[in-house]
Amino acid sequence: MKRIALLGCGSMGTQIALTIDSNDFPAVLTHVYDASKAASSSLVEKLNNKPEIVENSHLLSSQHIDIVVEAASQDAVKDVALSVLQNKKDLMIMSVGALLDESIYDILSDACKDFKKTIYLPSGAIAGLDGIKSVKSELESLSITTTKHPRSLKGAKFFENSDINLDKIDSITTIFDGTAKEAVSLFPANINVAALLSLTGIGSKQTKVRILADPNTDKNTHHIEASGKFGKMTFTIENFPDKNNPKTSRLAILSAIETLKKYCSDEIQIGT
Amino acid sequence: MKRIALLGCGSMGTQIALTIDSNDFPAVLTHVYDASKAASSSLVEKLNNKPEIVENSHLLSSQHIDIVVEAASQDAVKDVALSVLQNKKDLMIMSVGALLDESIYDILSDACKDFKKTIYLPSGAIAGLDGIKSVKSELESLSITTTKHPRSLKGAKFFENSDINLDKIDSITTIFDGTAKEAVSLFPANINVAALLSLTGIGSKQTKVRILADPNTDKNTHHIEASGKFGKMTFTIENFPDKNNPKTSRLAILSAIETLKKYCSDEIQIGT
Repeated sequence: MKRIALLGCGSMGTQIALTIDSNDFPAVLTHVYDASKAASSSLVEKLNNKPEIVENSHLLSSQHIDIVVEAASQDAVKDVALSVLQNKKDLMIMSVGALLDESIYDILSDACKDFKKTIYLPSGAIAGLDGIKSVKSELESLSITTTKHPRSLKGAKFFENSDINLDKIDSITTIFDGTAKEAVSLFPANINVAALLSLTGIGSKQTKVRILADPNTDKNTHHIEASGKFGKMTFTIENFPDKNNPKTSRLAILSAIETLKKYCSDEIQIGT
Repeated sequence: MKRIALLGCGSMGTQIALTIDSNDFPAVLTHVYDASKAASSSLVEKLNNKPEIVENSHLLSSQHIDIVVEAASQDAVKDVALSVLQNKKDLMIMSVGALLDESIYDILSDACKDFKKTIYLPSGAIAGLDGIKSVKSELESLSITTTKHPRSLKGAKFFENSDINLDKIDSITTIFDGTAKEAVSLFPANINVAALLSLTGIGSKQTKVRILADPNTDKNTHHIEASGKFGKMTFTIENFPDKNNPKTSRLAILSAIETLKKYCSDEIQIGT
C-alpha cells in the first residue's frame, strides 16, 4: 500500500485525490498541502479517508510517505522538487514546464541518481511518448501542431506583439510557427505539451511547434510527427476538455491517474 | 547496478546483450540461456563482460539477479514466467502473444501481486500505448491496420484456406478484416502487435485488426485508432526493418532496450 502526499488541491489535485479515495488501486492519501487553506480544507471535506493538512509544502516530504504528487505550479516544482528527492521520496510532476530550465532539469536528474529516487512525468494531454523516447537516439525531426478554438488561445503573451484579432478568425489560421523554446514563453497554456515533447525527444530548440486557431472545433488537437532512421511516427490526439475543468484535457487527468496507478501496483506493466 | 539474466540468445537477445555490455546504463548481464548451446556460446564470445551460461532456463531466476529478460518464444514464457516471479525476480517479456491466453495472464497478474514483482511489456513495434492505457476505461473502439509487403505475409496460416495469391497482388489489397483474437492465430508474425494492443485496451475480441498487402512498400506500417468519451487518438507508425534482423522492426528492438534502461536507472521517467 503506497502512501501519497499531494501538493496542490485545485481541480487536477482534487480529481487525483478522489481517485485515490475510491480505493481503485493500493494507495492511501495521507497528507495534502495547498497555498490556499480553503482549497485544502475543501478537498479534505470531499474525501472519506481524511488526509492531514500540513502547514507548508516542504512538510509533505518529511512525512512517512512514498511519493509526492505535484499538481500545483511550476514555482511549486522549483521550490520543493529537490528536497523531496533529498528526503528520499519519489515525485510525480504535473507542471512539467518547470523542467525546461536546463539547470533545474540537470539538478533533479542528478538528484534522482544520488538519492536513488525517481521523478515521474505523465504523458499529459499527448500520447506516443513511449515511441518517441525509444527512438530518441535516432530522431532527425520532431514537431507538434496544436489546433484550438481561438477563444482557447486568448490571453497568451504572443498576442501582445501581434496584429491577429482572434475574434475575427473565420477559418483555420496559423498563429505561430517556431521552436518549442519560443512557444513555451508565448503560449503558457501550451507549455506542458511542448515541454514534455522536448524533454522526451531532442530538446526545445530543435522541436518545432505550430499553433493553429480553428473557429469550428470543440476539441484541442495535437498532431505530432517524428522521423529518423527507424522510420516515421505520426500521432494525432483529439482531446475533449474535462467537464470539471474546461482548461484541461480529459486525457491529461486520465494519464496522471494511470501513472500513479502504475506506481502503486505490482502488476503487468504495458508499454515502454 | 541491476543484475540481468537473459533467456534467448537469438537476434533480439544479442542486441539487448550488446547494449548492456556497452555500459550505456547501470546494469550487468550475469547469466544467459538458450535452448541452442551454440547460440549462447556465440553470444558470450561477442561480449566483453562474459555472463555465465546456465544449464536450463529455470536456473536463470534462481541466481542473484534482479530481472529475467525473455527474448525467446511464447513457449519459453509459458514455461518459466511463473517461476521467475516465485523466485522474487522481475520479468521483461518480448513474446507478448503468450499472455493472450487469459488463464496465463490471470495467473501471472496474480503472481505479480502475491510476490510483489513486476512484468514489463515494451511497446514493441507500435507506440501510443501510454495514451491507450490511460483511456482504457473510456474506450469505445480500438483498431489496428497493418500494411506490409506481400512477401512479409507469406507462410501465414491464413493462406491455407484462402484463394489469395500473394505473388499476383499489384496494388494495396485488404487481406484480412476481423478481430485480434482471430488474427493472432492466422498471422503469427503479427501476434505481438495485436496482443499488445488487445492487452492494453479492451481485449482481443473487441480489438479490430485489418491486414493489407502493399507491393509498393518497403516498410511495415501500423495505423491505430482509438476513440471514446475522451476524444480520439490515431497513431501511424512506419517501421523500417532492423538491418540485423529483417523480420523485426527497428522500433521493436529500440523499445525493448528503452524499457530495460528505464528499469535499471534512477532517473526522470517520461511518459505514462
